[in-house]
Amino acid sequence: MILEAAVLNVKPGQEGVFERAMRAAKPLIAATPGFIGIEVRRCLERPNAYLLLVRWEKLEDHTVGFRQSGRYQKWREALHHFYEPFPVVEHYEESFLGE
Amino acid sequence: MILEAAVLNVKPGQEGVFERAMRAAKPLIAATPGFIGIEVRRCLERPNAYLLLVRWEKLEDHTVGFRQSGRYQKWREALHHFYEPFPVVEHYEESFLGE
Repeated sequence: MILEAAVLNVKPGQEGVFERAMRAAKPLIAATPGFIGIEVRRCLERPNAYLLLVRWEKLEDHTVGFRQSGRYQKWREALHHFYEPFPVVEHYEESFLGE
Repeated sequence: MILEAAVLNVKPGQEGVFERAMRAAKPLIAATPGFIGIEVRRCLERPNAYLLLVRWEKLEDHTVGFRQSGRYQKWREALHHFYEPFPVVEHYEESFLGE
């Protein structure tokens, strides 16, 4: 399993609209083969920041399977205009501490 | 549940020593009341970076219960010298998307 992670900085004042747009867009990413699960968590210290965590079976399920799909074009249109600056997305291995 | 999250940038070349030190230090944090679980995941794009995720029952279990304990002093001595720059640690609510 690979974990995609990014801190999403949402333009201040747009948090409520962003959360509704993310809820509506979730099926676009969830329909991707290899998708396991998504969490979007609001930050306590910076209320316009969110932690995006997406679990994938393997890296290419995200980088190829999702990003080269038509669903990703819709995801971008629905969500990317909320972010400033645009987030850095990285991927992480399984925890070396185990469960 | 509250999620503590930080990207740990480990001094290049010290990754193996860091992973052993983190394994040895895990019981220091795990003994804290309110501790639920810890993951430390290595980054695919930047192999000297790790994502630390710690689940706590509530914020104060981390900020007071752990950070004001003697075990935190040992944790700092065991781990903080690996990090450059020193990580920004933030806390996140439950996912608004549910499970």
